[in-house]
Amino acid sequence: MNRKSIERVGVTIFPAHYSGPTLGEVGEHRTIEAIMEAAPSSRNGDDAAVLNHASPNSRTVATTDMLVEGRHFKVGWSTPEEIGQKAIVQNFADIEAMGARPIAALLAVSAPRHTPVDWVRGVATGIHQRVGEYSAELVGGDLTEGDQLVLSVTAIGSLGGSRPELTLDRARPGQRVVTHGRIGWSAAGLALLERYGREQVPEKFTPLVDAHCAPRLNPGRGVVARATGATAMTDNSDGLIVDLNTIASRSGVGIDLHSADICPAPLIMEAADLLDADPWKWVLSGGEDHTLLATTAGDPPSGFRSIGRVVRGERVTIDGEEPRYGHGWVSF
Amino acid sequence: MNRKSIERVGVTIFPAHYSGPTLGEVGEHRTIEAIMEAAPSSRNGDDAAVLNHASPNSRTVATTDMLVEGRHFKVGWSTPEEIGQKAIVQNFADIEAMGARPIAALLAVSAPRHTPVDWVRGVATGIHQRVGEYSAELVGGDLTEGDQLVLSVTAIGSLGGSRPELTLDRARPGQRVVTHGRIGWSAAGLALLERYGREQVPEKFTPLVDAHCAPRLNPGRGVVARATGATAMTDNSDGLIVDLNTIASRSGVGIDLHSADICPAPLIMEAADLLDADPWKWVLSGGEDHTLLATTAGDPPSGFRSIGRVVRGERVTIDGEEPRYGHGWVSF
Repeated sequence: MNRKSIERVGVTIFPAHYSGPTLGEVGEHRTIEAIMEAAPSSRNGDDAAVLNHASPNSRTVATTDMLVEGRHFKVGWSTPEEIGQKAIVQNFADIEAMGARPIAALLAVSAPRHTPVDWVRGVATGIHQRVGEYSAELVGGDLTEGDQLVLSVTAIGSLGGSRPELTLDRARPGQRVVTHGRIGWSAAGLALLERYGREQVPEKFTPLVDAHCAPRLNPGRGVVARATGATAMTDNSDGLIVDLNTIASRSGVGIDLHSADICPAPLIMEAADLLDADPWKWVLSGGEDHTLLATTAGDPPSGFRSIGRVVRGERVTIDGEEPRYGHGWVSF
Repeated sequence: MNRKSIERVGVTIFPAHYSGPTLGEVGEHRTIEAIMEAAPSSRNGDDAAVLNHASPNSRTVATTDMLVEGRHFKVGWSTPEEIGQKAIVQNFADIEAMGARPIAALLAVSAPRHTPVDWVRGVATGIHQRVGEYSAELVGGDLTEGDQLVLSVTAIGSLGGSRPELTLDRARPGQRVVTHGRIGWSAAGLALLERYGREQVPEKFTPLVDAHCAPRLNPGRGVVARATGATAMTDNSDGLIVDLNTIASRSGVGIDLHSADICPAPLIMEAADLLDADPWKWVLSGGEDHTLLATTAGDPPSGFRSIGRVVRGERVTIDGEEPRYGHGWVSF
């Protein structure tokens, strides 16, 4: 989603309760020790990490995503644990979107000298929590001084068996479009944060704010979808229409969504009333839910629901009409 | 090596000959297209990249390193091609240091809006040149706006066969210490750059400056060392004494280097004369050569030479004495 509305600050101000020693005070080695204590792995600590695949002849799947303070997160809005969780979910969603199983993550951090060690430890704790849900581990990383807080996470997955991976170009007319989670929640949460800040958001909207600050997926849905006949898959990272348009254009098809199957949840409607906003904008162009979006010739895989059909054509439509919000998040 | 001497600038000034459009002008998608044109791979462009291992039942090896402008490189000193080459070599050296073969790289970039697209394209070109020497590919990445130029590279390798990987903790007394490349060249090059800037370094010292700006390794030496009986291995990234002390402490041994086998090369002696510097400081604490350092019970593997012995003890010595320069590069 477009985050130009988040203002840039020259120096990151950490919340006052992170009053312990800083990276500049304790140095690189002790900070790395803190990270490895918070996210322990026997594979970490050598020049590179050696991974074992669960099944023989598995293929390796890899992806990377960078989070920049002030742009992808704000230290005043999210706890470091949430930022670590979000970094894992957005990377692991890309592994799952191939139909693969996440097995490991690497974390590179650039941070100013005044960054509290406890803050970095919190990021590692959040990473450890989320990778644990996938039986994966934080296996390596890098820590360096920089003017801006930048987290770069790489996720590595394992693709077993002989079925093809779930690429963007394998949607075919007549197939169902299916999804397994929430759509529009992260964007609604961001809009509430922009209006109120974290502390003042009305409590009933906590699920929306949580969906933005620490999105959560049901691990393993990608593997299930691949095992049960899904063809193309991606995740809702840049916006529902944008991401499905990518599948449409790469597959040479159209996609028609059924408005009744993607209509905003009641809590989103309430937030939209409060903010005098259009809830459909959050659903159609919001992104960052990292919910899996797939196509399949069969019934929806376990945990998925149908939201539309692959058709002949070349763009995404809703009930046969051009959608109102077709633009999502881009950098620059 | 300690780079606190490189001054920080608030805004990165790109050399004037990069006068084409900027990232802010062309946007994310066209910049990514430029990267993929410069470093093409059929595996790039989906949610995540799927890799094939050359041999069945290979294990996956992964490592990541972050390069921050003003700290790990300066746009006024190095071409973007050199920076891309350096990013690959330092990451691939960590893969080779496990005895594995690099097969893929991922690149995440945070860059200010005024960054020229041609500069980013140059980084991708440099990456493509170096990964090609290893028959590897740039298979994915991420591009985002940030205040500071930050490159985060992840390298993935393949470890075939049943021999153990070359960890840091397997040096044993009586073994040889061997190395396959140059030591101290990068630090000498950096000292020349700090004194003269890139343009004014006397031409005879070009090999030293090149060793700093675009270090080069002989691909495959790590695999050869593992195949021919090496036990522990690392690379000269933080400084010869620091990196060998890591092997010594992790293995519970001492390491005695022979001064005659690591004495500064004639060109380094000349540079030291010119700068009135101690060439041994560059050799012992310089780092960033990324030359492989290994221990082996047998003869030096092909392409390696002996520089010392593993002994009973707990630290690195030179001809039995405490080294003069034991401290290397640390962040913060």
